[in-house]
Amino acid sequence: MLADIITIGDEILIGQIVNTNSTWLAEQLEAIGIKIRQITTVSDNRQHIIQTLQEAEEQSQLIVITGGLGPTEDDITKQTLAEFFDTQLIENQEVLADIEAFVKSRNAQMNSRNRKQAELPQSCTIIRNEIGTAAGMWFERNSVVFVSMPGVPFEMKAMFSNSVIPKLKAQFKTPEVIHFTVQTFGTPESVLAEQLEEWESALPSEIKLAYLPSPERLRLRMSMVCADKESGEQLIAEQYLKLKEILGETIYDTGDNYLYETVGKLLLERNLSLSTAESCTGGNIARLISSVAGSSEYFKGSVVAYSNEIKKNILGVPEQILIQHGAVSEQTVIEMSKGVQKLMDTDFSIAVSGIAGPGGATQDKPVGTTWIAVANKQKVVASKFIFGTQRDINIRRATATALNMLRLLMIEKL
Amino acid sequence: MLADIITIGDEILIGQIVNTNSTWLAEQLEAIGIKIRQITTVSDNRQHIIQTLQEAEEQSQLIVITGGLGPTEDDITKQTLAEFFDTQLIENQEVLADIEAFVKSRNAQMNSRNRKQAELPQSCTIIRNEIGTAAGMWFERNSVVFVSMPGVPFEMKAMFSNSVIPKLKAQFKTPEVIHFTVQTFGTPESVLAEQLEEWESALPSEIKLAYLPSPERLRLRMSMVCADKESGEQLIAEQYLKLKEILGETIYDTGDNYLYETVGKLLLERNLSLSTAESCTGGNIARLISSVAGSSEYFKGSVVAYSNEIKKNILGVPEQILIQHGAVSEQTVIEMSKGVQKLMDTDFSIAVSGIAGPGGATQDKPVGTTWIAVANKQKVVASKFIFGTQRDINIRRATATALNMLRLLMIEKL
Repeated sequence: MLADIITIGDEILIGQIVNTNSTWLAEQLEAIGIKIRQITTVSDNRQHIIQTLQEAEEQSQLIVITGGLGPTEDDITKQTLAEFFDTQLIENQEVLADIEAFVKSRNAQMNSRNRKQAELPQSCTIIRNEIGTAAGMWFERNSVVFVSMPGVPFEMKAMFSNSVIPKLKAQFKTPEVIHFTVQTFGTPESVLAEQLEEWESALPSEIKLAYLPSPERLRLRMSMVCADKESGEQLIAEQYLKLKEILGETIYDTGDNYLYETVGKLLLERNLSLSTAESCTGGNIARLISSVAGSSEYFKGSVVAYSNEIKKNILGVPEQILIQHGAVSEQTVIEMSKGVQKLMDTDFSIAVSGIAGPGGATQDKPVGTTWIAVANKQKVVASKFIFGTQRDINIRRATATALNMLRLLMIEKL
Repeated sequence: MLADIITIGDEILIGQIVNTNSTWLAEQLEAIGIKIRQITTVSDNRQHIIQTLQEAEEQSQLIVITGGLGPTEDDITKQTLAEFFDTQLIENQEVLADIEAFVKSRNAQMNSRNRKQAELPQSCTIIRNEIGTAAGMWFERNSVVFVSMPGVPFEMKAMFSNSVIPKLKAQFKTPEVIHFTVQTFGTPESVLAEQLEEWESALPSEIKLAYLPSPERLRLRMSMVCADKESGEQLIAEQYLKLKEILGETIYDTGDNYLYETVGKLLLERNLSLSTAESCTGGNIARLISSVAGSSEYFKGSVVAYSNEIKKNILGVPEQILIQHGAVSEQTVIEMSKGVQKLMDTDFSIAVSGIAGPGGATQDKPVGTTWIAVANKQKVVASKFIFGTQRDINIRRATATALNMLRLLMIEKL
């Protein structure tokens, strides 16, 4: 079964707000087995809205519309829907009572604009709004369902979850959809695709595979529409076992965790502590680790050692090493990782020093050159990486690479 | 002039990622006077892509396409565009050399998939990609321009800013649009709107005003389409003067700088140095300050003191203060700010300690309670804030509030 999502309003078209409503709706619909054919954002323009509705009606069995139901002049969704369904706006007494109660609860006075919000297309089924003044609408024509809701995210979400989803489930018998996401790090997309060529071509045709890359991780997602959830999950589990055999420790998790979350989980489970010493990442590792609620259980702190004095005076990197090898060197990151581990008395530590760019390059150390060390009480491992030329991406890649090295050290694969 | 944005790929349609590319593109196009007619998201489906291109071609003069250019099987944008423009894919030697150089810089090996990314439609103008393997494409037909770019946000953004915008400006004579953004911090939107009521109602009708709120700042943007840039700019400058009289130091900058950039600029101009001591912000202030290229000129480092031991042992907060007043207290942040300033020998310092949540609240310190101190060699100012219940928002608000306090201390308004 196919659905279209239509978002009405200028804020998205001028780049003022991000279309998070559509993402949320798509996720909800996907979870009950409804596939989104198209997401369309149009302005508050009568003709454009009608044309978009006509096209969607030809292709999909469900059309979910958000926006354009506010009390101001430029909100024309209701009138346009009335025209599209050849019906009239009439004042709905139930909705009027809802609006009056809502306005009263806010200690405000009813005005003509509020009252106008009770005027709704005669032929629709009303979806009541318990936390705002714009009611939703449900239309049906030739087995196609149209749902119109306000654009205010929390009003839309409450209405959709409480009223629309139950109605959709009752009306349509939708198949179950399973997603299984495998998180990888360290192997570029093209190399991974080559490694997986054979496995991929032998995948059961019901399973769809997607590669989702970013500087932080490369996700592989298997999706499957199935009549029976249990057997579907088993089929995907079998494929995951094969995948794990091919990729090994390149897989750092399943589900949706980032590396900083997976590493946090490992530390928590094992009751171990972490500190970081950061130069070019500037505290980015610390802030990600500490962004997780409860991270104070395993994260003690960080020294952001942006200047060499701090590497020397606080982390105890010998001046001789800084002079002889430079701040971006194997010797320096090893000393930084040892220094912070001792200073903060932790089981594990991470140290990063690199040239994030655009300045700071030398003849033998181009922008992107980054040394990373991870250590526990017995072992220190340091590696050199040459990332790219973009400062922000270099910081993100150095962060993820350091976290992955820590993970590998913790599971004794480094 | 109208433009359509078409996003190709399943990730958005299944609700896995938010369509931030379109928002960013819409904002960029808007800024050069190009109005977005429609944003459409479709799946990697040949027929659907072609139909969407046809419809867009009838309505708009510019069609910006992102996504579907990766090296995997499900990426079909290139083939589909070749079909749509009745041309063939041929290996482009320049792009091949770019890809080879890129792969080499990553210490990886070329493979058949990388090589295939050099195959591009014969009739298009290539847009080179300096930070990835998927080249962009520029097509023209009957005065309509089609631009196709990869969906990876940082590759797309670099390509669009560096290559596409200059080409669009050269090709189309778009009306001049002036934007003037005033950055404010510290006054809530509803209060600000009240303060500005009179000024706003007296604004010349050509100037449109938008309030753009976020946890980091509240932007006021004046926009104006004008025939003569100079007189337009003068009109806006006059309004800005009046605005400045009303809002005073609530305005921290004009243009697009965040507080961490404005503060960095101030430090650099005055040749002053900064250190931070962060508990609940976990390094977020440090990573923002150090995200600016050249920040090593004024930023020496940070101690992320997540545990009390570190507040005591490294920052020198007396144990008695921690026991008597707690880690989230006026006394503690004052000692933290003094401690880090001395430790790192800087002119200014920031210290933050708070309960980001969801855990950690006590009877008299609810989630969101945050103490912030800013200091120079002569003066320490500490203030208490009670932010909200959301961990991530609390961290962002604490960060921005601390940076704003530093700014006010630096300009002697605190």
